[in-house]
Amino acid sequence: MNHTVQIYDATLRDGMQGEGMSLTAHEKVRVAHKLDDLGVDLIEAGFPASNPKELELFDLLGQETFDHAQIVAFGMTRRRGVAAAQDENLQVLARCFAGVCTLVGKTWDLHLEKVVKVGREENLAMIQESVAYLVEAGKRVIYDAEHFFDAWRSDSAYALDCLRAAAAGGAERVVLCDTNGSSLPHQVGSAVAEVVSVLEGVPVGIHCHNDLECGVANTLAAVLNGATQVQGTMNGIGERTGNANLVSIIGNLQFKLGIDALPGERIIRLTETAHFVDELLNQVPNATQPFVGRNAFAHKGGLHVAGVRADASTFEHMEPELVGNERQLIVSELAGRHTVAEKARSAGIEMDDAAAQRAIDNVKELEARGYQFEAADGSFELLLHKQVGDYEPLFTLESWRTIVEQNAQGHVECTATIKIWVEGERYVRSAEGNGPVNALDAALRSVIAEFHPHLRDIELTDYKVRLLDQHHGTGATTRVLVQSSDGQRSWGTIGVAQNVIAASWEALVASFEYAELPRQAQPAADDGSPAGRPA
Amino acid sequence: MNHTVQIYDATLRDGMQGEGMSLTAHEKVRVAHKLDDLGVDLIEAGFPASNPKELELFDLLGQETFDHAQIVAFGMTRRRGVAAAQDENLQVLARCFAGVCTLVGKTWDLHLEKVVKVGREENLAMIQESVAYLVEAGKRVIYDAEHFFDAWRSDSAYALDCLRAAAAGGAERVVLCDTNGSSLPHQVGSAVAEVVSVLEGVPVGIHCHNDLECGVANTLAAVLNGATQVQGTMNGIGERTGNANLVSIIGNLQFKLGIDALPGERIIRLTETAHFVDELLNQVPNATQPFVGRNAFAHKGGLHVAGVRADASTFEHMEPELVGNERQLIVSELAGRHTVAEKARSAGIEMDDAAAQRAIDNVKELEARGYQFEAADGSFELLLHKQVGDYEPLFTLESWRTIVEQNAQGHVECTATIKIWVEGERYVRSAEGNGPVNALDAALRSVIAEFHPHLRDIELTDYKVRLLDQHHGTGATTRVLVQSSDGQRSWGTIGVAQNVIAASWEALVASFEYAELPRQAQPAADDGSPAGRPA
Repeated sequence: MNHTVQIYDATLRDGMQGEGMSLTAHEKVRVAHKLDDLGVDLIEAGFPASNPKELELFDLLGQETFDHAQIVAFGMTRRRGVAAAQDENLQVLARCFAGVCTLVGKTWDLHLEKVVKVGREENLAMIQESVAYLVEAGKRVIYDAEHFFDAWRSDSAYALDCLRAAAAGGAERVVLCDTNGSSLPHQVGSAVAEVVSVLEGVPVGIHCHNDLECGVANTLAAVLNGATQVQGTMNGIGERTGNANLVSIIGNLQFKLGIDALPGERIIRLTETAHFVDELLNQVPNATQPFVGRNAFAHKGGLHVAGVRADASTFEHMEPELVGNERQLIVSELAGRHTVAEKARSAGIEMDDAAAQRAIDNVKELEARGYQFEAADGSFELLLHKQVGDYEPLFTLESWRTIVEQNAQGHVECTATIKIWVEGERYVRSAEGNGPVNALDAALRSVIAEFHPHLRDIELTDYKVRLLDQHHGTGATTRVLVQSSDGQRSWGTIGVAQNVIAASWEALVASFEYAELPRQAQPAADDGSPAGRPA
Repeated sequence: MNHTVQIYDATLRDGMQGEGMSLTAHEKVRVAHKLDDLGVDLIEAGFPASNPKELELFDLLGQETFDHAQIVAFGMTRRRGVAAAQDENLQVLARCFAGVCTLVGKTWDLHLEKVVKVGREENLAMIQESVAYLVEAGKRVIYDAEHFFDAWRSDSAYALDCLRAAAAGGAERVVLCDTNGSSLPHQVGSAVAEVVSVLEGVPVGIHCHNDLECGVANTLAAVLNGATQVQGTMNGIGERTGNANLVSIIGNLQFKLGIDALPGERIIRLTETAHFVDELLNQVPNATQPFVGRNAFAHKGGLHVAGVRADASTFEHMEPELVGNERQLIVSELAGRHTVAEKARSAGIEMDDAAAQRAIDNVKELEARGYQFEAADGSFELLLHKQVGDYEPLFTLESWRTIVEQNAQGHVECTATIKIWVEGERYVRSAEGNGPVNALDAALRSVIAEFHPHLRDIELTDYKVRLLDQHHGTGATTRVLVQSSDGQRSWGTIGVAQNVIAASWEALVASFEYAELPRQAQPAADDGSPAGRPA
């Protein structure tokens, strides 16, 4: 294959339709930067006016700079019987900062008749006028033809008319959507081939869902038949059975179809990016996920291991390192020597080979105990500092205690007491809080902020708890992720313990220690390193 | 399509290669019966001599009667330089009760050279003689050509010679295996088409893995090009990224390709069978799994719900009932009166319009405060019961308290004390726990399980915490989701509070209250309601 393919990520909009999927506006900005680092071309962020949270998101995104990706605003064709210029939702899109807009509209006669009750001609006018209005407003417009393949099976001539209406309105591309995921690869392939040949010169994209477990294969069938944009979501999140999984699509385009899906060598970030999204969504990364799962390149049995040793291609369809994954049973995403060396460099840590190896061993050991560093860059950097010997604890702990009680009147009270040593002095402090972690935070900061005033600026912006091994009976382990910010930078830290409060304490202390690392005195905010950006 | 396709289930053998997959011999017999009930044609049970557990399994299976399915014993071609009749493993297969044997052998020159170090001619002899030996012993023999598609790409003439050797030995069928999952549908399709045409008269099967997330699509491509047996595992379990998912393959064959994959109307058992295997493996059924997942036919939002009501085919690719699944209406702010009424109906709650409206108002108010009922079906059903007035609390709370402390030696201790009233009596109980919620759980259950013994069977299978509105300053809210199971059913409950312990307490109490709802006394396990399924 020698044509290029645009990568269009819909995680932040269509992916959020999945059950239980929820990210704050600030988290979405972090995902957008991670996707930009990965090298995707287009990031569908949402509809800028569907609720206050989306408005906040677009306000935030408008202030960010992206290296490669374009932010896309999403909306629908105009309402029936209203001029495009008078449609409030289209006006919002026209005013929005995003230079690219995706409009979705109807294609399937069943929907025109049963759902929206719009005539066939009126629908064509709605498509063409809505696109034209945004094009006149200076936007690049992508047209998503909803339920395209059902429409194609029902009335292919009208389905083509809908695409032609979008093209006539000035759409730079039409995207064929298998909205209910009802199509198989041979059907998608033949429909795309015909559309590409009939609509000569109009670039075609593909948007699939996974209802038949063929989301990825359908997308590839479309590309093989001339589609030049693929829409999907990270890890295939989305409503029902999910959208087509962009992670697998990218892997297949690059390594099986020979299409450079991402610029440069960025595909090496695929595993890290996929897991980052899972972590923010508080989801356990799927160990059996193709390309990026912990078990995707796992080997069992001596024959396999010996075969792989003799020649990895005997049992592996590709080198796992190419997507930032690893071979073997204990897989660590960060523990490749290269990755460690790269992370150390970007954090300004000088690290020899022996220290790098110690760091890798340490990561593997910690991961076996439930730690995970994808969303805990702060803890990971602390670990590197410990390995090169320039880490100093902020204090020495004697003990802590938290008491939470709800009294007979229904009132909840929470206090924490800490006993710590700093510079040879013993401090005993108590504080109240909304919750036990908040109270511990207040007590601890009341002491150490006297020595490190910068800690007063730190806010804990997120706190997540998950049980590990919950199906393996005795002694479930608790993993806590804390996200912190000092207004300039944002970093994640992790704690793992049986007890949720003990795990929280560990993550809290790591957050403060990271904040006060010696290199933080240097101007680091915009150096392009992972720590310098809201990663 | 008018040819028939044999369904070959490899869950009990190849599926068990997956990480953490383990079933006792007795459990495997239960799975075999469940697969027989579903109507699969062939059940690959294992290699009858690879260890004592497998021997026990074949002893047990030999005493069972199956309605439709044949049990298949699995093994490898003879060792190099040994006559087939002298090969101990082939002898075991020849003596085994199973009438059908599957033999796997090498096809790919890279493996001959690097892994087993066997010459090309010797390999052909190993295949033909091993098959012939078992055929002479009265077995029907299926030949699995390992790494067939890699072999095909490397040396298609030799790959065909291997298949011909098996046919010459008397194999009733040759199966093309994509052992490392490295192929895409268009490659599988064209290779199968050529093999079918060259080996005229030899039936061909297909065995795929999911490394490129194309296991199902590859299998379908093979069928579309003439394969007449499909091998796969329930829910796609298997090593690395898993085998091709037989559940989705069956659904697609039946409903998308018009091939009767299972006898009679048995496909209605697909969901139940898939979940049964998950339950025995102690795995949470994947809510987003195609065809059988809890969310596979979920709808969110008023337009969808109204569309489905007008004509289900507007938003559903098939009727969920046909595979024993059901439509799921996701409760959210967007959802209206219809959704609530339908939920109430499926929970067996009689609800008039006024009560439904109160429930909607209540949901809206709670969602504004951070509640989310998508993953908290238990809490939602409790809410409905409260609206119709048939809810009774399990106890009256006076107060609770938790203390967590880490002492100077680093040891963490945790105790909880509750004061509650049940049936006019006051109870004060303390308990220790791994964490504060675990301790509260233990203290509470020590009292109320005396009144409700069923509560002793309940396990908290998952616990998740997240902060809401963490970027909006004062008073971050904590949301806790608890997942519980009594071994039969699984349900989610939610708590929202400033304090994580208070939120956890709320979710915990809701879990117990849901478990003891009056309707739970009815036989509910198989009534087809959401609560009656392992959701």
